[in-house]
Amino acid sequence: MNTKDGSGMRITTFAGGDAGSWRVESMRAVAGSVLPRADRLQILETANSQAANSSWILRGASSYERYVHRPEREVLVARQPPLGRPQAICAALIPIRKSCAWWELPQDERRAIFEERSGHIATGIRYLPGIARRLYQSRDLGEPFDFLTWFEYASADAAAFDELVHAIRGTEEWSYVDWEVDIRLSRETLFE
Amino acid sequence: MNTKDGSGMRITTFAGGDAGSWRVESMRAVAGSVLPRADRLQILETANSQAANSSWILRGASSYERYVHRPEREVLVARQPPLGRPQAICAALIPIRKSCAWWELPQDERRAIFEERSGHIATGIRYLPGIARRLYQSRDLGEPFDFLTWFEYASADAAAFDELVHAIRGTEEWSYVDWEVDIRLSRETLFE
Repeated sequence: MNTKDGSGMRITTFAGGDAGSWRVESMRAVAGSVLPRADRLQILETANSQAANSSWILRGASSYERYVHRPEREVLVARQPPLGRPQAICAALIPIRKSCAWWELPQDERRAIFEERSGHIATGIRYLPGIARRLYQSRDLGEPFDFLTWFEYASADAAAFDELVHAIRGTEEWSYVDWEVDIRLSRETLFE
Repeated sequence: MNTKDGSGMRITTFAGGDAGSWRVESMRAVAGSVLPRADRLQILETANSQAANSSWILRGASSYERYVHRPEREVLVARQPPLGRPQAICAALIPIRKSCAWWELPQDERRAIFEERSGHIATGIRYLPGIARRLYQSRDLGEPFDFLTWFEYASADAAAFDELVHAIRGTEEWSYVDWEVDIRLSRETLFE
Protein backbone atom coordinates (compact mmCIF):
# COMPACT_ATOMS: atom_id res chain seq x y z
CA MET A 1 0.00 0.00 0.00
CA ASN A 2 2.86 2.35 0.69
CA THR A 3 4.85 1.89 -2.48
CA LYS A 4 4.16 4.81 -4.71
CA ASP A 5 6.22 5.95 -7.66
CA GLY A 6 4.81 9.43 -7.90
CA SER A 7 3.13 8.73 -11.23
CA GLY A 8 -0.23 7.54 -10.02
CA MET A 9 0.31 3.82 -9.44
CA ARG A 10 -2.93 3.44 -7.54
CA ILE A 11 -5.04 4.89 -10.35
CA THR A 12 -7.20 2.75 -12.65
CA THR A 13 -8.51 3.95 -16.01
CA PHE A 14 -11.84 2.80 -17.49
CA ALA A 15 -12.06 3.50 -21.22
CA GLY A 16 -15.34 3.09 -23.09
CA GLY A 17 -15.01 2.66 -26.85
CA ASP A 18 -14.60 -0.15 -29.32
CA ALA A 19 -11.87 -2.14 -27.54
CA GLY A 20 -11.57 -4.14 -24.34
CA SER A 21 -12.49 -7.53 -22.93
CA TRP A 22 -15.84 -6.35 -21.48
CA ARG A 23 -18.82 -5.96 -23.83
CA VAL A 24 -21.26 -3.16 -22.97
CA GLU A 25 -24.74 -4.69 -22.67
CA SER A 26 -26.57 -1.51 -21.65
CA MET A 27 -25.87 2.02 -20.51
CA ARG A 28 -28.47 4.29 -18.92
CA ALA A 29 -28.58 7.44 -16.82
CA VAL A 30 -30.19 6.94 -13.41
CA ALA A 31 -29.73 10.69 -12.68
CA GLY A 32 -28.24 13.35 -14.97
CA SER A 33 -27.03 12.73 -18.50
CA VAL A 34 -25.85 9.47 -20.04
CA LEU A 35 -22.29 8.96 -21.34
CA PRO A 36 -21.52 8.77 -25.09
CA ARG A 37 -22.09 5.38 -26.67
CA ALA A 38 -19.45 2.68 -26.18
CA ASP A 39 -19.51 -0.98 -27.27
CA ARG A 40 -16.58 -2.27 -25.22
CA LEU A 41 -14.82 -1.36 -21.99
CA GLN A 42 -11.09 -1.51 -21.39
CA ILE A 43 -9.64 -1.40 -17.84
CA LEU A 44 -6.07 -0.18 -17.48
CA GLU A 45 -4.04 -0.13 -14.27
CA THR A 46 -2.43 3.19 -15.05
CA ALA A 47 -3.35 6.87 -14.94
CA ASN A 48 -1.50 7.96 -18.05
CA SER A 49 -3.07 5.74 -20.65
CA GLN A 50 -4.27 7.20 -23.89
CA ALA A 51 -6.73 4.49 -24.89
CA ALA A 52 -7.17 4.61 -28.65
CA ASN A 53 -10.67 5.15 -30.08
CA SER A 54 -12.28 5.67 -26.71
CA SER A 55 -15.48 7.69 -26.48
CA TRP A 56 -14.92 8.38 -22.77
CA ILE A 57 -12.26 7.82 -20.13
CA LEU A 58 -12.95 7.70 -16.39
CA ARG A 59 -10.27 7.42 -13.73
CA GLY A 60 -10.30 6.57 -10.04
CA ALA A 61 -7.96 5.68 -7.19
CA SER A 62 -8.36 2.53 -5.12
CA SER A 63 -7.97 4.11 -1.70
CA TYR A 64 -8.54 3.69 2.03
CA GLU A 65 -12.11 3.38 3.31
CA ARG A 66 -13.85 6.58 4.38
CA TYR A 67 -16.77 5.19 6.45
CA VAL A 68 -16.13 1.55 7.39
CA HIS A 69 -15.76 0.86 11.15
CA ARG A 70 -13.83 -2.04 12.70
CA PRO A 71 -16.73 -4.54 13.14
CA GLU A 72 -17.91 -3.91 9.55
CA ARG A 73 -14.34 -4.27 8.26
CA GLU A 74 -14.08 -7.69 9.90
CA VAL A 75 -17.24 -8.96 8.24
CA LEU A 76 -16.15 -7.55 4.87
CA VAL A 77 -12.69 -9.11 5.05
CA ALA A 78 -14.21 -12.49 5.97
CA ARG A 79 -16.84 -12.52 3.21
CA GLN A 80 -15.80 -10.39 0.25
CA PRO A 81 -14.55 -12.28 -2.82
CA PRO A 82 -11.70 -11.15 -5.08
CA LEU A 83 -12.24 -9.67 -8.52
CA GLY A 84 -11.58 -11.88 -11.54
CA ARG A 85 -13.40 -15.05 -10.50
CA PRO A 86 -13.82 -17.27 -13.60
CA GLN A 87 -17.60 -17.58 -13.15
CA ALA A 88 -18.10 -13.81 -12.71
CA ILE A 89 -18.81 -12.99 -16.36
CA CYS A 90 -21.24 -10.17 -15.55
CA ALA A 91 -20.12 -6.75 -14.38
CA ALA A 92 -21.44 -3.25 -13.73
CA LEU A 93 -19.60 0.05 -13.77
CA ILE A 94 -21.58 2.72 -11.91
CA PRO A 95 -20.07 6.23 -11.92
CA ILE A 96 -21.65 8.50 -9.31
CA ARG A 97 -21.48 12.16 -8.38
CA LYS A 98 -22.83 13.53 -5.09
CA SER A 99 -24.16 17.06 -4.56
CA CYS A 100 -22.46 20.03 -2.87
CA ALA A 101 -24.81 19.51 0.08
CA TRP A 102 -23.23 16.07 0.70
CA TRP A 103 -19.64 17.27 0.52
CA GLU A 104 -20.31 20.18 2.84
CA LEU A 105 -21.51 17.83 5.61
CA PRO A 106 -18.97 17.02 8.35
CA GLN A 107 -17.64 13.45 8.60
CA ASP A 108 -19.94 12.35 11.45
CA GLU A 109 -23.09 13.41 9.58
CA ARG A 110 -21.95 11.77 6.31
CA ARG A 111 -21.26 8.55 8.20
CA ALA A 112 -24.68 8.67 9.96
CA ILE A 113 -26.52 9.09 6.65
CA PHE A 114 -24.32 6.52 4.88
CA GLU A 115 -24.64 3.70 7.39
CA GLU A 116 -26.83 4.34 10.46
CA ARG A 117 -29.69 5.71 8.30
CA SER A 118 -29.08 4.16 4.87
CA GLY A 119 -27.39 0.84 5.76
CA HIS A 120 -25.04 1.06 2.78
CA ILE A 121 -22.44 -1.34 4.19
CA ALA A 122 -25.04 -3.68 5.78
CA THR A 123 -26.93 -3.97 2.48
CA GLY A 124 -23.75 -4.75 0.53
CA ILE A 125 -22.80 -7.43 3.07
CA ARG A 126 -26.12 -9.26 2.49
CA TYR A 127 -25.03 -9.88 -1.12
CA LEU A 128 -21.60 -11.32 -0.26
CA PRO A 129 -19.85 -13.39 -1.42
CA GLY A 130 -21.91 -13.47 -4.64
CA ILE A 131 -21.32 -9.87 -5.72
CA ALA A 132 -17.70 -8.66 -5.70
CA ARG A 133 -17.24 -4.90 -5.44
CA ARG A 134 -14.43 -2.37 -5.69
CA LEU A 135 -14.71 1.37 -5.10
CA TYR A 136 -12.53 3.92 -6.88
CA GLN A 137 -12.27 7.50 -5.58
CA SER A 138 -12.34 10.11 -8.36
CA ARG A 139 -13.26 13.39 -6.67
CA ASP A 140 -9.76 14.56 -5.70
CA LEU A 141 -8.49 13.75 -9.20
CA GLY A 142 -10.68 16.49 -10.67
CA GLU A 143 -12.74 13.88 -12.54
CA PRO A 144 -16.36 14.50 -13.64
CA PHE A 145 -17.67 11.84 -11.21
CA ASP A 146 -16.84 11.49 -7.49
CA PHE A 147 -16.73 7.66 -7.45
CA LEU A 148 -16.61 4.73 -9.81
CA THR A 149 -18.06 1.51 -8.41
CA TRP A 150 -17.21 -1.77 -10.09
CA PHE A 151 -19.14 -5.00 -9.49
CA GLU A 152 -18.55 -8.56 -10.75
CA TYR A 153 -20.95 -11.50 -10.45
CA ALA A 154 -22.08 -14.72 -12.08
CA SER A 155 -25.15 -14.79 -14.37
CA ALA A 156 -27.03 -16.59 -11.59
CA ASP A 157 -26.58 -13.50 -9.38
CA ALA A 158 -27.89 -10.97 -11.92
CA ALA A 159 -31.31 -10.70 -10.26
CA ALA A 160 -29.68 -10.31 -6.83
CA PHE A 161 -27.54 -7.50 -8.22
CA ASP A 162 -30.65 -5.67 -9.49
CA GLU A 163 -32.16 -6.06 -6.02
CA LEU A 164 -29.00 -4.64 -4.40
CA VAL A 165 -28.82 -1.50 -6.54
CA HIS A 166 -32.58 -0.97 -6.15
CA ALA A 167 -32.25 -1.13 -2.34
CA ILE A 168 -29.31 1.31 -2.28
CA ARG A 169 -31.07 3.77 -4.60
CA GLY A 170 -34.03 4.00 -2.23
CA THR A 171 -31.95 5.26 0.70
CA GLU A 172 -31.52 8.73 2.22
CA GLU A 173 -27.88 8.64 1.10
CA TRP A 174 -29.02 8.42 -2.52
CA SER A 175 -30.97 11.69 -2.25
CA TYR A 176 -27.50 13.31 -2.46
CA VAL A 177 -26.61 11.57 -5.75
CA ASP A 178 -27.08 14.06 -8.60
CA TRP A 179 -25.41 12.12 -11.43
CA GLU A 180 -25.38 8.35 -11.86
CA VAL A 181 -24.85 6.19 -14.93
CA ASP A 182 -25.48 2.44 -14.84
CA ILE A 183 -23.33 0.47 -17.29
CA ARG A 184 -23.86 -3.30 -17.52
CA LEU A 185 -21.22 -5.52 -19.07
CA SER A 186 -20.37 -9.10 -19.86
CA ARG A 187 -17.38 -11.06 -20.99
CA GLU A 188 -16.83 -14.45 -22.57
CA THR A 189 -16.10 -17.32 -20.22
CA LEU A 190 -12.43 -18.09 -20.00
CA PHE A 191 -12.55 -21.38 -21.94
CA GLU A 192 -14.87 -20.41 -24.73
CA MET B 1 -17.49 23.08 -4.70
CA ASN B 2 -19.26 21.16 -7.40
CA THR B 3 -17.84 22.88 -10.46
CA LYS B 4 -15.22 20.65 -11.94
CA ASP B 5 -13.83 20.78 -15.44
CA GLY B 6 -12.33 17.32 -15.43
CA SER B 7 -8.78 18.65 -15.62
CA GLY B 8 -7.99 18.88 -11.93
CA MET B 9 -9.33 22.32 -11.00
CA ARG B 10 -9.12 21.59 -7.29
CA ILE B 11 -5.43 20.73 -7.44
CA THR B 12 -2.70 23.08 -6.22
CA THR B 13 0.96 22.75 -7.22
CA PHE B 14 3.85 23.74 -4.93
CA ALA B 15 7.11 24.16 -6.86
CA GLY B 16 10.40 24.58 -5.02
CA GLY B 17 13.20 26.16 -7.06
CA ASP B 18 14.51 29.61 -7.84
CA ALA B 19 11.21 31.39 -8.55
CA GLY B 20 8.13 32.37 -6.57
CA SER B 21 6.97 35.01 -4.11
CA TRP B 22 7.87 32.93 -1.02
CA ARG B 23 11.52 32.79 0.07
CA VAL B 24 12.66 29.51 1.66
CA GLU B 25 14.14 30.30 5.08
CA SER B 26 14.87 26.72 6.12
CA MET B 27 14.13 23.17 5.10
CA ARG B 28 14.67 20.15 7.33
CA ALA B 29 13.53 16.53 7.54
CA VAL B 30 11.62 15.73 10.72
CA ALA B 31 11.38 12.07 9.62
CA GLY B 32 12.79 10.46 6.46
CA SER B 33 14.86 12.30 3.87
CA VAL B 34 14.90 16.01 3.10
CA LEU B 35 13.88 17.45 -0.28
CA PRO B 36 16.44 18.86 -2.74
CA ARG B 37 17.48 22.43 -2.09
CA ALA B 38 15.17 25.26 -3.17
CA ASP B 39 15.49 29.01 -2.57
CA ARG B 40 11.98 30.07 -3.51
CA LEU B 41 8.50 28.54 -3.57
CA GLN B 42 5.89 29.08 -6.24
CA ILE B 43 2.24 28.17 -5.65
CA LEU B 44 0.10 27.46 -8.72
CA GLU B 45 -3.63 26.79 -8.74
CA THR B 46 -3.38 24.13 -11.42
CA ALA B 47 -2.34 20.49 -11.72
CA ASN B 48 -0.72 20.69 -15.13
CA SER B 49 1.90 23.33 -14.52
CA GLN B 50 5.46 22.71 -15.62
CA ALA B 51 7.20 25.19 -13.32
CA ALA B 52 10.52 26.13 -14.92
CA ASN B 53 13.75 25.49 -12.99
CA SER B 54 12.03 23.73 -10.12
CA SER B 55 13.98 21.26 -8.02
CA TRP B 56 10.77 19.59 -6.79
CA ILE B 57 7.04 19.74 -7.43
CA LEU B 58 4.39 18.62 -4.94
CA ARG B 59 0.67 18.51 -5.68
CA GLY B 60 -2.43 18.22 -3.52
CA ALA B 61 -6.20 18.59 -3.70
CA SER B 62 -8.15 20.87 -1.41
CA SER B 63 -10.87 18.42 -0.44
CA TYR B 64 -13.65 17.61 2.04
CA GLU B 65 -12.71 16.97 5.68
CA ARG B 66 -12.07 13.35 6.68
CA TYR B 67 -12.32 13.56 10.50
CA VAL B 68 -14.02 16.82 11.55
CA HIS B 69 -17.37 16.41 13.35
CA ARG B 70 -20.17 18.99 13.45
CA PRO B 71 -19.29 20.73 16.76
CA GLU B 72 -15.64 21.03 15.70
CA ARG B 73 -16.67 22.32 12.28
CA GLU B 74 -18.70 25.09 13.92
CA VAL B 75 -15.76 26.29 16.01
CA LEU B 76 -13.43 26.14 13.00
CA VAL B 77 -15.80 28.09 10.75
CA ALA B 78 -16.22 30.76 13.45
CA ARG B 79 -12.51 31.21 14.17
CA GLN B 80 -10.35 30.24 11.21
CA PRO B 81 -8.88 33.13 9.20
CA PRO B 82 -8.51 33.20 5.40
CA LEU B 83 -5.17 32.73 3.66
CA GLY B 84 -3.46 35.82 2.24
CA ARG B 85 -3.77 38.22 5.20
CA PRO B 86 -1.39 41.18 4.61
CA GLN B 87 0.35 40.72 7.99
CA ALA B 88 0.88 36.96 7.49
CA ILE B 89 4.36 37.17 5.97
CA CYS B 90 5.53 33.88 7.51
CA ALA B 91 4.50 30.48 6.18
CA ALA B 92 5.29 26.80 6.53
CA LEU B 93 4.79 23.99 4.03
CA ILE B 94 4.85 20.61 5.80
CA PRO B 95 4.56 17.55 3.51
CA ILE B 96 3.69 14.39 5.44
CA ARG B 97 3.45 10.68 4.70
CA LYS B 98 1.78 8.19 7.05
CA SER B 99 2.68 4.50 7.34
CA CYS B 100 0.82 1.46 5.93
CA ALA B 101 -0.32 0.72 9.49
CA TRP B 102 -2.26 4.02 9.54
CA TRP B 103 -3.97 3.52 6.19
CA GLU B 104 -4.99 -0.02 7.06
CA LEU B 105 -6.93 1.18 10.13
CA PRO B 106 -10.70 1.52 9.72
CA GLN B 107 -12.24 5.01 9.83
CA ASP B 108 -13.42 4.84 13.48
CA GLU B 109 -9.96 3.91 14.75
CA ARG B 110 -8.21 6.58 12.66
CA ARG B 111 -10.65 9.18 14.04
CA ALA B 112 -10.11 7.99 17.64
CA ILE B 113 -6.34 8.30 17.33
CA PHE B 114 -6.56 11.59 15.41
CA GLU B 115 -8.86 13.44 17.78
CA GLU B 116 -9.98 11.57 20.91
CA ARG B 117 -6.39 10.47 21.72
CA SER B 118 -4.22 13.06 19.95
CA GLY B 119 -6.44 16.16 20.02
CA HIS B 120 -5.32 17.25 16.55
CA ILE B 121 -8.32 19.49 15.89
CA ALA B 122 -8.52 20.81 19.48
CA THR B 123 -4.83 21.76 19.43
CA GLY B 124 -5.18 23.58 16.10
CA ILE B 125 -8.20 25.49 17.42
CA ARG B 126 -6.15 26.87 20.34
CA TYR B 127 -3.93 28.70 17.82
CA LEU B 128 -6.79 30.34 15.91
CA PRO B 129 -7.19 32.92 14.53
CA GLY B 130 -3.43 33.62 14.58
CA ILE B 131 -2.33 30.67 12.47
CA ALA B 132 -4.19 30.08 9.19
CA ARG B 133 -4.07 26.54 7.83
CA ARG B 134 -5.04 24.68 4.67
CA LEU B 135 -4.75 20.94 4.11
CA TYR B 136 -4.16 19.42 0.66
CA GLN B 137 -4.76 15.69 0.05
CA SER B 138 -2.06 14.04 -2.07
CA ARG B 139 -2.38 10.31 -1.45
CA ASP B 140 -4.96 9.49 -4.14
CA LEU B 141 -2.98 11.49 -6.69
CA GLY B 142 -0.09 9.00 -6.47
CA GLU B 143 2.15 11.69 -4.98
CA PRO B 144 5.18 10.87 -2.80
CA PHE B 145 3.54 12.44 0.29
CA ASP B 146 0.00 11.80 1.60
CA PHE B 147 -0.71 15.39 2.68
CA LEU B 148 0.65 18.88 2.24
CA THR B 149 -0.18 21.25 5.08
CA TRP B 150 0.17 24.98 4.52
CA PHE B 151 0.27 27.55 7.35
CA GLU B 152 0.39 31.38 7.28
CA TYR B 153 1.03 33.67 10.26
CA ALA B 154 2.48 37.02 11.30
CA SER B 155 6.06 37.25 12.63
CA ALA B 156 4.58 37.84 16.09
CA ASP B 157 3.04 34.35 15.95
CA ALA B 158 6.24 32.50 14.95
CA ALA B 159 6.87 31.20 18.48
CA ALA B 160 3.26 30.08 18.80
CA PHE B 161 3.62 28.19 15.52
CA ASP B 162 6.68 26.34 16.84
CA GLU B 163 4.67 25.43 19.94
CA LEU B 164 1.80 24.12 17.80
CA VAL B 165 3.93 21.81 15.63
CA HIS B 166 5.84 20.63 18.70
CA ALA B 167 2.55 19.67 20.41
CA ILE B 168 1.23 17.83 17.35
CA ARG B 169 4.50 15.94 16.86
CA GLY B 170 4.30 14.54 20.39
CA THR B 171 0.95 12.81 19.83
CA GLU B 172 0.03 9.15 19.22
CA GLU B 173 -1.14 10.15 15.72
CA TRP B 174 2.39 11.26 14.88
CA SER B 175 3.82 7.80 15.62
CA TYR B 176 2.27 6.89 12.23
CA VAL B 177 4.14 9.64 10.36
CA ASP B 178 7.11 8.09 8.56
CA TRP B 179 8.15 11.01 6.34
CA GLU B 180 7.87 14.68 7.22
CA VAL B 181 9.69 17.72 5.88
CA ASP B 182 9.37 21.13 7.54
CA ILE B 183 9.82 24.05 5.15
CA ARG B 184 9.70 27.60 6.59
CA LEU B 185 9.10 30.56 4.32
CA SER B 186 8.69 34.31 4.30
CA ARG B 187 7.60 36.97 1.88
CA GLU B 188 8.02 40.70 1.66
CA THR B 189 5.24 42.82 3.14
CA LEU B 190 2.86 44.12 0.52
CA PHE B 191 3.92 47.77 0.71
CA GLU B 192 7.65 47.39 0.94
